[in-house]
Amino acid sequence: MSVVHAVDLIIKKRDGGTLSDQDIRCFIDGVTQDKWPDYQISALLMAMFLRGLTVSETAAMTLAMAQSGAVLDLSSIPGIKVDKHSTGGVADTTTLILAPLVAACSVPVVKMSGRGLGFTGGTIDKLESIPGFRVSLTIDEAIRIARLNGLVVMAQTDQLTPADKKLYALRDVTGSVESIPLIAASIMSKKIACGADAIVLDIKCGKGAFMHDLRQARQLAETMVAIGRQTGKRVIAVITGMDQPLGRKIGNALEVEEAISVLKGETQGDLLDVTLTLGSEMLMAADAAVSREQARNQLTRALENGSALERFRMFLSAQDGDTRVIDQPERLTHASHRSVWHANQSGFLAAIETAELGRLFVDLGGGRLAKTDSIDRSAGMVLHARVGDPVSSGQPLVTLQADHQGKLDAVYQRLPDIFTISSKPVSRPPAVIDIIR
Amino acid sequence: MSVVHAVDLIIKKRDGGTLSDQDIRCFIDGVTQDKWPDYQISALLMAMFLRGLTVSETAAMTLAMAQSGAVLDLSSIPGIKVDKHSTGGVADTTTLILAPLVAACSVPVVKMSGRGLGFTGGTIDKLESIPGFRVSLTIDEAIRIARLNGLVVMAQTDQLTPADKKLYALRDVTGSVESIPLIAASIMSKKIACGADAIVLDIKCGKGAFMHDLRQARQLAETMVAIGRQTGKRVIAVITGMDQPLGRKIGNALEVEEAISVLKGETQGDLLDVTLTLGSEMLMAADAAVSREQARNQLTRALENGSALERFRMFLSAQDGDTRVIDQPERLTHASHRSVWHANQSGFLAAIETAELGRLFVDLGGGRLAKTDSIDRSAGMVLHARVGDPVSSGQPLVTLQADHQGKLDAVYQRLPDIFTISSKPVSRPPAVIDIIR
Repeated sequence: MSVVHAVDLIIKKRDGGTLSDQDIRCFIDGVTQDKWPDYQISALLMAMFLRGLTVSETAAMTLAMAQSGAVLDLSSIPGIKVDKHSTGGVADTTTLILAPLVAACSVPVVKMSGRGLGFTGGTIDKLESIPGFRVSLTIDEAIRIARLNGLVVMAQTDQLTPADKKLYALRDVTGSVESIPLIAASIMSKKIACGADAIVLDIKCGKGAFMHDLRQARQLAETMVAIGRQTGKRVIAVITGMDQPLGRKIGNALEVEEAISVLKGETQGDLLDVTLTLGSEMLMAADAAVSREQARNQLTRALENGSALERFRMFLSAQDGDTRVIDQPERLTHASHRSVWHANQSGFLAAIETAELGRLFVDLGGGRLAKTDSIDRSAGMVLHARVGDPVSSGQPLVTLQADHQGKLDAVYQRLPDIFTISSKPVSRPPAVIDIIR
Repeated sequence: MSVVHAVDLIIKKRDGGTLSDQDIRCFIDGVTQDKWPDYQISALLMAMFLRGLTVSETAAMTLAMAQSGAVLDLSSIPGIKVDKHSTGGVADTTTLILAPLVAACSVPVVKMSGRGLGFTGGTIDKLESIPGFRVSLTIDEAIRIARLNGLVVMAQTDQLTPADKKLYALRDVTGSVESIPLIAASIMSKKIACGADAIVLDIKCGKGAFMHDLRQARQLAETMVAIGRQTGKRVIAVITGMDQPLGRKIGNALEVEEAISVLKGETQGDLLDVTLTLGSEMLMAADAAVSREQARNQLTRALENGSALERFRMFLSAQDGDTRVIDQPERLTHASHRSVWHANQSGFLAAIETAELGRLFVDLGGGRLAKTDSIDRSAGMVLHARVGDPVSSGQPLVTLQADHQGKLDAVYQRLPDIFTISSKPVSRPPAVIDIIR
């Protein structure tokens, strides 16, 4: 095998060529083993950004990154293992509902989740608002819990996809984040390293997501489904709306509270609708239902007969969380200060600046600008209206809560730009936009 | 002034935007002061490579790089100072003839030159084959010599354009060398830092040059003339042919010998023709002639009346070179071994693989692959035919000379691929292709 020089690969991509599987393995090995200096990696990433990657190149990147570290072996857990990934949004509480719900329908869920960053939240932060809940598990421990319980959610470990971590850190500071093939390869490599047989993707699209327009969201969805085809994994991409927060509550403790309320059958709406759609696709991918209609019925039944909630209780218990929060939500931390924002005119709620709302949530103390920031799990917002709802002047639109009045006041000042009220009726944005298989 | 983040500038260029003068100064300051990490520099360079730079951006890069280190103040030398730069070729001996010739016509020449690398030679290596000749001068010393003598040629100092040095080193290993605006800015920044009022560029085009096709050469020429317009410098670009070696001799001592022979009026041909064209442009740029015809006459007279040769003698003497080499060229080092390659058929010399010939010269010991390689100043080649010449089978085409028979033999093996002989007449390639002002 000839020695491939880093600069030759950079020039090949720069000039619009297609990298071979071997070229890409050479690159990813160079990244993983610190053989490529950062300046060559960032030059190739920029060339990839601007020249693009074919599906074959993207799939090769995905596999090479997946194999750059440990790959979970879930074969001791019976059944087809289906993972789920969301590209990130505001009040996206689906995992907390979906994981026990699907597990209650006999589909095992072994999920690694991340923390929140910027305007999007993260499942791990939410789970940590449950007293005692342990998110740091060893891989062996996680597999043991999943075998017993059919369900485990843990924080990402450093052992998986080290190449992706290094590439992402460089992309972040060298302007090559927003590349569809690079995003697709990054997400898919992590899911493959997590040992999934099938993957259901929730691709958020709208003002509160990384993808603002449907064309891009669809491109990302198609790229990931194509990677699945090339790597032998079932991949289903659900494009969901993120022009407004998915749930009614934004905040770590608040979102756990809302998830419990959905699992109890007390709350319906877009959050449940998206959860049932993702769940149906997961059941289908796991061969646990013969049709989407049957899958949806199974899920609805698991909610109605309390088995999903029961599975949630087992889930908390298995990871040392205080199960009393289910019946006594006041045991989740609660903020000491509150402010309510009211509609200043009557009409119809026409738009919510969702990403900006997510940033205000960070400023309330609930989220992070940098990975090392500490957060206040009690900070948050409760929305009282959704886009399309009629509103009357003086009606509450959002309640803010935080541990400091000062933070509350500063955020309050910035609320006037968040909500748009129209005098004419406004159609409700769809919760589920498209499904790509 | 707002703080400009490196990543914002990278994204601006990545997305096809135009960087402001302030953006570019921020970048070049970041490079010079080691505030930008290499991985951000290389990402921006790749984005510049693929997205291109406008003339304004290129001019701003040029000025910022020129000002990144010392800028020579030549105001104590009377007259308009005209510098000359060649983009590099094989047997390109023009500077050794042109500098004394133009100085003899009262146009002061203060020139920093480089060493050879790869298949192209460098003036400094050639001058060092003259016993005693000093190329390492301080800037003050160089200015003093130029004031006395109207002529000085010195090795590049580290004090000039540190940003260009750092950028070039990174471009070399990250695949962003062959960018016309980046090449143009690099060359022009060095010339401006050298204090020139006007610059005559010799843009080599052909098989033995970095630019192989005329379209690219013309683009580079036009870019540099445009930079001159934006930075207030007179810039003239002469595009010259490099489909065959310019002179008949390739080698450090050999090229000094050939330059002396031209200055003595003993050798004519393409080398003299290109020299007179560049010289005429230099005289015009210095306001030392009213027309190109008059300029050319002045230069021809300086050759014929011996004043150019006399100026060469003063030049050697001022920099401690042994002036006896002028009349006793055997005092330049000479190689101990020789081999002659003969034509294997009759016809017309149709092509010379010029870059490859330059690489064979490196292998003879005369040039460098890495900047730190030591060289043999006696190694070289003498060509006995030019493209278009009729040749008869068995006639000598080239004589190789080196200090080791082994090197000679190794290079000799590779000569069959260098010369193409056609049975049909072949037209002579032009020495001067175009002039862009």
